[in-house]
Amino acid sequence: MLPGSGGETRVGQIVALVRGRIERRVLLPGARLPSVRAMAETTGFSKSTVVEAYDRLAAEGVIRARPGSGFFVAAPLAPLAVADVEQAPRRDIDPVWMLRRSIEDLPGAIRAGSGTLPTDWLAGEAMRKAMRAAARGNTLPSADVSVLGYGPMRALLSRRMLEQGVEASPDQILLTESGTHSLDLVCRFLLQPGDTVLLDDPCFFNFLALLRAHRARVVAVPMTPQGPDLAAFAEVVAREKPRLYITNSAVHNPTGATLSATHAHRVLKIAEAADMLIVEDDIFCDFEHVTASRYAAFDGLDRVIRIGSFSKTATNALRCGHVALRADWVESLADLRLVTTYVGNPLGAELLAAMVTDGSYRHHMDMVRNRLARAMARVVRRLGDLGLEPWTVPACGMSLWVPLPGGLDASVLAGEALEEGIVLAPGAVFSPRGGWNDHVRLNVTQCDDPRFYAFLARMCAS
Amino acid sequence: MLPGSGGETRVGQIVALVRGRIERRVLLPGARLPSVRAMAETTGFSKSTVVEAYDRLAAEGVIRARPGSGFFVAAPLAPLAVADVEQAPRRDIDPVWMLRRSIEDLPGAIRAGSGTLPTDWLAGEAMRKAMRAAARGNTLPSADVSVLGYGPMRALLSRRMLEQGVEASPDQILLTESGTHSLDLVCRFLLQPGDTVLLDDPCFFNFLALLRAHRARVVAVPMTPQGPDLAAFAEVVAREKPRLYITNSAVHNPTGATLSATHAHRVLKIAEAADMLIVEDDIFCDFEHVTASRYAAFDGLDRVIRIGSFSKTATNALRCGHVALRADWVESLADLRLVTTYVGNPLGAELLAAMVTDGSYRHHMDMVRNRLARAMARVVRRLGDLGLEPWTVPACGMSLWVPLPGGLDASVLAGEALEEGIVLAPGAVFSPRGGWNDHVRLNVTQCDDPRFYAFLARMCAS
Repeated sequence: MLPGSGGETRVGQIVALVRGRIERRVLLPGARLPSVRAMAETTGFSKSTVVEAYDRLAAEGVIRARPGSGFFVAAPLAPLAVADVEQAPRRDIDPVWMLRRSIEDLPGAIRAGSGTLPTDWLAGEAMRKAMRAAARGNTLPSADVSVLGYGPMRALLSRRMLEQGVEASPDQILLTESGTHSLDLVCRFLLQPGDTVLLDDPCFFNFLALLRAHRARVVAVPMTPQGPDLAAFAEVVAREKPRLYITNSAVHNPTGATLSATHAHRVLKIAEAADMLIVEDDIFCDFEHVTASRYAAFDGLDRVIRIGSFSKTATNALRCGHVALRADWVESLADLRLVTTYVGNPLGAELLAAMVTDGSYRHHMDMVRNRLARAMARVVRRLGDLGLEPWTVPACGMSLWVPLPGGLDASVLAGEALEEGIVLAPGAVFSPRGGWNDHVRLNVTQCDDPRFYAFLARMCAS
Repeated sequence: MLPGSGGETRVGQIVALVRGRIERRVLLPGARLPSVRAMAETTGFSKSTVVEAYDRLAAEGVIRARPGSGFFVAAPLAPLAVADVEQAPRRDIDPVWMLRRSIEDLPGAIRAGSGTLPTDWLAGEAMRKAMRAAARGNTLPSADVSVLGYGPMRALLSRRMLEQGVEASPDQILLTESGTHSLDLVCRFLLQPGDTVLLDDPCFFNFLALLRAHRARVVAVPMTPQGPDLAAFAEVVAREKPRLYITNSAVHNPTGATLSATHAHRVLKIAEAADMLIVEDDIFCDFEHVTASRYAAFDGLDRVIRIGSFSKTATNALRCGHVALRADWVESLADLRLVTTYVGNPLGAELLAAMVTDGSYRHHMDMVRNRLARAMARVVRRLGDLGLEPWTVPACGMSLWVPLPGGLDASVLAGEALEEGIVLAPGAVFSPRGGWNDHVRLNVTQCDDPRFYAFLARMCAS
């Protein structure tokens, strides 16, 4: 059949009508589409036909549904609406939705799926102390110092990385706005639209959202408690020739897995043979009791780019991400940061440097690690009482990756939990292939409310 | 002639050799090329042949020269090395070079071409006061509040914009890391590679650098002291169909020109007819004695996106940029910011909000405006004594756009000035077409050193 009002289906006609309006810019990006009822009246078709057409347009990423407020033309580049993963995004597994949920202030909510420490676990007093000291001084932190960012902070980071076996001189370290910003800069620097990037399955959900914004093609490798599945890793690298592999290694998000030395060595050998780069997001490193293997330590920052931040450990109020990479790339990355965000956050860098130098950050982390270890043991025990056993018992950190009892769908469970004021992180949001939906990520520091276990008990019993 | 070692020129052979190595990834991005001498020895060609080949590769953006350290393979995407303007970039007119120079700490240098106020003009005491108050409190600023950024700051910005006639509700305002970051986000949101963007000639040099990073095509319209040349504007918009026009309107950088109401109205009419968006970078607004016309005020944020920041007026230590735009775009832009940099800088936003609320920012700006007016009058008079007359006498701000006496090349002048510890901003760095090189931008707050006028006097006399 030829397209046109005669030959095209009714649904197709409405799809073509909306597409045409967008193309002629009658409907601008962000504009609200006519309501289903209005469109039905205008076109003379039934409401169900309009709904089907809108659904098709939404599935194609042309428009976006916002529950309760209707349909909207997707943003011009639609960087977040157009998923380049194997499955079309669903709201309940949309990483941007999860990211927003992790920020929204939900008074009284039990944030069992959160990715951050509770506010009262953060380094509030250390930060206030550093602020008082800075306020007493008569020099202002200034952006006009170094293109790479506050020098003393880079010197501290260089020494701290050495404790993890990572050799990076201060001149190989660029300060950024956050860990996320570091990763974004690296992707901008290294990726072209359509490039293939390898992720763990599961992985931190923002990797998925960020790679959509870069219009990269995502392929995935299954995780094991020691690192990526090596046979699958070798196979997918050979077949897909990814440009980058992005991972949390020593403290994996969401599983809490720890990279083994064997895995680190083998993955690096495969990466080397395929000339693939590795971006190691190491923002949880200060949670470790014992230093695990790291790609950056094994490789010496040759094909590994190492990202860090204090947001997860000290406070997310002082934005100071950083990235350590090959000496001959750092200036180009600094240029890119300069042109796209100007300099980093000088006050944040100075306050954090003061907190590291005066020992208050170290003291804070000692306390946090102890509290984390106790919370981890407590939550694992409480889950065990319900017959739930984590996928692996993490060596450190706050994340616990928990399989649900047979048949329970984590997205459905998360919806039910939300009605009781409990925010869960369903497994599929962490999965490049939309899998793992029989798992949830729990934050052991946010699970102590008895209502949470009561909810879980009911779910396990039903 | 066919390409190949027989038919190709010697220069062409070296070019092909280097290109091949880069394509086969023997030479990785950022890698240093063999020295001219080493390449001459390897190939058996003369050093001048190698130099010519390297120059050609540099002109094509494949490699980059770093004076004193040799030639390097351009970054993978080479976002900053590949200029899409009418002329190939030259080091002396490279905006990234200028941007770096504006940050480098050059002890004792006279920063007559700087784009910022001297450190002792900034709001140091107000910032310290706000820090003391924040350190006394027992709540930490937190990123976990709102996806758009610290609400009280957005409410303050909404009220302050209204004083300029710009109606933007707090929900139309997104906080970012900086003015530059705002512009980068907007470009990411609206531009595809190859899209055409209209700039003023001259314009803020970072617009050029940023648009290179976005691989946009730049077209330019000549400035007049009342805004863009209207006939040229209409003509270039009709011919080139730009997607965006990016400008500083009320306080133009580098010329200090003030947009007239006539120009604002006419430009908006042309933009509307062509369905072109306008990004108004209004980071200098608090320098104004009298509120000038603004695109955002005339248009009501329909096709105008308004960018602001406190970095130029209060301090660049507290990074808090913002962008005001159509209500139906703000959530998508917030998503993009969330995914690419997570949240803004909560501490910076809270401290700046405190400075605005307690009146110390207003007091600071009253003082700065008075000092600026005196400095402007003083520098205009001192230049007049040398027979130099600015292109226009700005109504406010720190920038003065000064034509040089006949025959003087601003890039050459800047090179000579640098040898005497004087940093100048040559005109061509502000020009999308590499023009205006008989002008310099002066910062009236950084010109008081007698050595600067002595230098100018010698230049004018020679």
